[in-house]
Amino acid sequence: MSNAYDVFPESQKIYVSGTSSDIKVPMRQIRLTNGQTFRVYDTSGPYTDGSYEADVRLGLPAIRRPWILKRQDVEEYAGRPIQPIDDGMNAPVDLMVHETAPGLNRNPLRTKMGKNVTQMHYARQGIITGEMEFIALREGYDPEFVRKEVAQGRAVIPANINHPESEPMIIGRHFHTKINANIGNSAVASSIEEEVDKMRWATLWGADTVMDLSTGKNIHTTRQWIIRNAPVPIGTVPIYQALEKVKGKAEDLSWDVYRDTLIEQAEQGVDYFTIHAGVRLSYIPLTASRVTGIVSRGGSIMAAWCLYHHQENFLYTHFEEICQIMKQYDITFSLGDGLRPGSLADANDRAQFAELDTLGELTKIAWEHDVQVMIEGPGHVPMHLIKENVEREMEICHEAPFYTLGPLTTDIAPGYDHITSAIGAAMIGWFGTAMLCYVTPKEHLGLPDKEDVKQGVIAYKIAAHAADVAKGHPRAQEWDDTMSLARFEFRWRDQFNLSLDPQTAVAFHDETLPAEPAKAAHFCSMCGPKFCSMRITQDIRTWAQAHDVTADDAIAVGLHAKAQEFRERGGILYPPAE
Amino acid sequence: MSNAYDVFPESQKIYVSGTSSDIKVPMRQIRLTNGQTFRVYDTSGPYTDGSYEADVRLGLPAIRRPWILKRQDVEEYAGRPIQPIDDGMNAPVDLMVHETAPGLNRNPLRTKMGKNVTQMHYARQGIITGEMEFIALREGYDPEFVRKEVAQGRAVIPANINHPESEPMIIGRHFHTKINANIGNSAVASSIEEEVDKMRWATLWGADTVMDLSTGKNIHTTRQWIIRNAPVPIGTVPIYQALEKVKGKAEDLSWDVYRDTLIEQAEQGVDYFTIHAGVRLSYIPLTASRVTGIVSRGGSIMAAWCLYHHQENFLYTHFEEICQIMKQYDITFSLGDGLRPGSLADANDRAQFAELDTLGELTKIAWEHDVQVMIEGPGHVPMHLIKENVEREMEICHEAPFYTLGPLTTDIAPGYDHITSAIGAAMIGWFGTAMLCYVTPKEHLGLPDKEDVKQGVIAYKIAAHAADVAKGHPRAQEWDDTMSLARFEFRWRDQFNLSLDPQTAVAFHDETLPAEPAKAAHFCSMCGPKFCSMRITQDIRTWAQAHDVTADDAIAVGLHAKAQEFRERGGILYPPAE
Repeated sequence: MSNAYDVFPESQKIYVSGTSSDIKVPMRQIRLTNGQTFRVYDTSGPYTDGSYEADVRLGLPAIRRPWILKRQDVEEYAGRPIQPIDDGMNAPVDLMVHETAPGLNRNPLRTKMGKNVTQMHYARQGIITGEMEFIALREGYDPEFVRKEVAQGRAVIPANINHPESEPMIIGRHFHTKINANIGNSAVASSIEEEVDKMRWATLWGADTVMDLSTGKNIHTTRQWIIRNAPVPIGTVPIYQALEKVKGKAEDLSWDVYRDTLIEQAEQGVDYFTIHAGVRLSYIPLTASRVTGIVSRGGSIMAAWCLYHHQENFLYTHFEEICQIMKQYDITFSLGDGLRPGSLADANDRAQFAELDTLGELTKIAWEHDVQVMIEGPGHVPMHLIKENVEREMEICHEAPFYTLGPLTTDIAPGYDHITSAIGAAMIGWFGTAMLCYVTPKEHLGLPDKEDVKQGVIAYKIAAHAADVAKGHPRAQEWDDTMSLARFEFRWRDQFNLSLDPQTAVAFHDETLPAEPAKAAHFCSMCGPKFCSMRITQDIRTWAQAHDVTADDAIAVGLHAKAQEFRERGGILYPPAE
Repeated sequence: MSNAYDVFPESQKIYVSGTSSDIKVPMRQIRLTNGQTFRVYDTSGPYTDGSYEADVRLGLPAIRRPWILKRQDVEEYAGRPIQPIDDGMNAPVDLMVHETAPGLNRNPLRTKMGKNVTQMHYARQGIITGEMEFIALREGYDPEFVRKEVAQGRAVIPANINHPESEPMIIGRHFHTKINANIGNSAVASSIEEEVDKMRWATLWGADTVMDLSTGKNIHTTRQWIIRNAPVPIGTVPIYQALEKVKGKAEDLSWDVYRDTLIEQAEQGVDYFTIHAGVRLSYIPLTASRVTGIVSRGGSIMAAWCLYHHQENFLYTHFEEICQIMKQYDITFSLGDGLRPGSLADANDRAQFAELDTLGELTKIAWEHDVQVMIEGPGHVPMHLIKENVEREMEICHEAPFYTLGPLTTDIAPGYDHITSAIGAAMIGWFGTAMLCYVTPKEHLGLPDKEDVKQGVIAYKIAAHAADVAKGHPRAQEWDDTMSLARFEFRWRDQFNLSLDPQTAVAFHDETLPAEPAKAAHFCSMCGPKFCSMRITQDIRTWAQAHDVTADDAIAVGLHAKAQEFRERGGILYPPAE
């Protein structure tokens, strides 16, 4: 099998098999120069399998479909007809766009009357699903542990039965910390093809889920392309499309339009919905004295609606009905933090925590329906106020997985907010946040392009991995240790190939030492050959091991013999590379 | 006065005056479009004063010299003659290089017999020096507080009497968290002019001190150029030059060569010396079982010497004599952590903490001489082990300021170690570290170029500022709040100009909305005009203020009146920009 990763030299897709032949868990295996291999979690989907021929017009294989059908609790149905308004058109849908979109050669599925198809429901029945077994292999845990975490609501498996193309993954604080990448066009820029390409690009670098935040025209079609080609769960904020359907006038929004949009997107296969049901009418004035008011788009839309009608948020009043829809398809709630702080000054204020109280209340309701829930969190938070966010969320929302945007730890660095927020993200991940929504360098300034998506994903892979190490995930630090050993042993190629971005690592190395022999050199351009501390200390170690001297022995007996041998070897501490 | 900052539009150098006319504290004042101004700490020196004409051959004005001479406790003397070996030459020094170097038109100064010229000594005598007053104005504290912190050893003012060109600054945990940028050629690349340029570049972006880590030829001359043109304290690792003098053979090092190097550099004006006096002979075997052994260059050189001679580290045995030299010039100790961990696996191990114990012992000795001390720290440390580093350092080293390299919170991202380490740096800064040594994207891969220096400095300005906010520095969060208000009020130009890197912020903004009117737009490319949450919420705020409704009132009386007015205004939430 050839290496189809392109950006990851010496990497190969491998599959770990489960109890049945249709459970094949993908991993990326890196071949090291010392004959060993190292496996890493792989979000890139079939595209990086050398034997797979991708065709974005056909979409990915529906790997989960057999498992879903085997459970005999779903039915096909005709589904809601697609309408011009779904793509923001008044006239009939532009046919050309639809012809080139990946066609579903199947009708949507929904739950049979009296059944419940959520992973939480199965888990609570004691059933270990194919999804759970897949995840157990992927994460290195026992399947029963996966089941228990899902049953208790501490973890979610976003897996709409209409998105059978996705490879099962789990979001929960005992598992690998996940990252989400936002893509999506907006009224100002972008195109459908670019968004699909960004989705693939984001998952190649490590995005665990992707949110399609498109607004404007072709919103339905864009989403269709993305979902059919997505190996990871896709999230959306349905209010954006609902607002398009009422031509951008928030006051014209209604439960009917919103409900119609939920079903439209449910049938397409969206895996989780951000729903701002916690922005209650009475909380809105709490934002009046803020420095930056309401910065959540969905939150501000709902606030505008509530104020205009002087009515309670219809997402709150219709929450039970929303649960009924969610469980028909196993869509996971991502309860939106519409009142999250948009500046350090507003962090952890009354508005934010009032909404959190409501999200805790809604979590309980969703769980009564066995609907999976995660809770969204901020935003902009100074370091000393981060921990309180996690602690409150766990308490108030009964340990439902926390999913935060950053948080940014300072407001003063637009252009570098992937860094200001990676600091907060790493910390909040360590404290127990299960998924981190990335922030790109373009945050506050513009829409991310491909390079920004990559920079955002890598900054967040760093944050998530640092969190995994700090929280003691059993498979985390072995990656660091493998890298550090390669570094110590001057296996330059391994050091590059084990890194999050091998091409950048090679390019940086080659700027000062471009020649091929430098890749085998026992020094580098930072210190030059004479000053290399690793060369010097490697000898100390080799020497001590060869003489079976432990550190304690050496201290006890003194170092006299060592010193003599050292001198005899002429003080040359490491044999130079040939 | 014109704007000489170039990279900071609408910025102007201003000076805050002290009690005497020769105390003029520079600040960068940013003019905002709403008529207000905002002042930020300024490390860039006279170069950014429009009325100053820089000539790198003459060097900067010696602003501190009058204060130093007025104290009447120093004397001029002939100084140590410069020798070919100082620049790594066997033949007479290359005259051309020396002719073009900034000439000192003065002899070096040293302490008069029986006197002590350290800032710590003055502080302990109850004297508030010009340097302390300058710093008090610069930091926004009372001069007496500055004096007390220095007297107690909790803060240092690196200020060699032979570097009167530097603008006084303080390193201590109650002050702004400082950052250091490393520059310096090495055996493999670089040139003198480039290094001076990098020093200016680093301070323009915000480096508070610069370490010249040059090795190889022209080491003396490079340093001379750097110091004469440096508005910030300069640190070095004298063992590097000492090793050059013995042609790179660690075993040939001796106290005499080292002492000669200390005096050579002291007379040039180096403000702080990294001295690896804590790498004791008996600690070396503790590194034998490490994944990455000894990664400090200085530490490994001393370890090699100790092993070869089977003798105690001569920096440890001659520590009292070193103190005698330091206090002749007021050079600050930066007690090096030669056994710092070079990988997560080695963090907080016995070797590291054994050395720290010795640094605590040496701190006491230095303080007996009133010599200022800071303590260097790691390195590579996972998040959950960071705090222990600060707590131990404070306890064992009696609250001497901590100065850490990063730490990197994961080993897996070469090419992005400015980010892996900014995470650790922000946290360790919050916990009480006084200065953060930057890490550039080239770390582990090659020597930083100008762009890398900028990226490293900005990542560390972010970390240091986030730390200042979290630890509650009185002048920290006002910057964030000023930025966030500009953001909320759609003052785009102010948002750019208040940022750490205005040009990048503008460039990112212009990628999607390049036209000039977009700079006044009440929306941006991220959400487009219809979806702008800030537009929506700004109205909520304006409305509430206009009606004198507090958040509590609003909840109590209900929002009915609000809603009605909102409807009457047609649900248009903010008047569109003209």
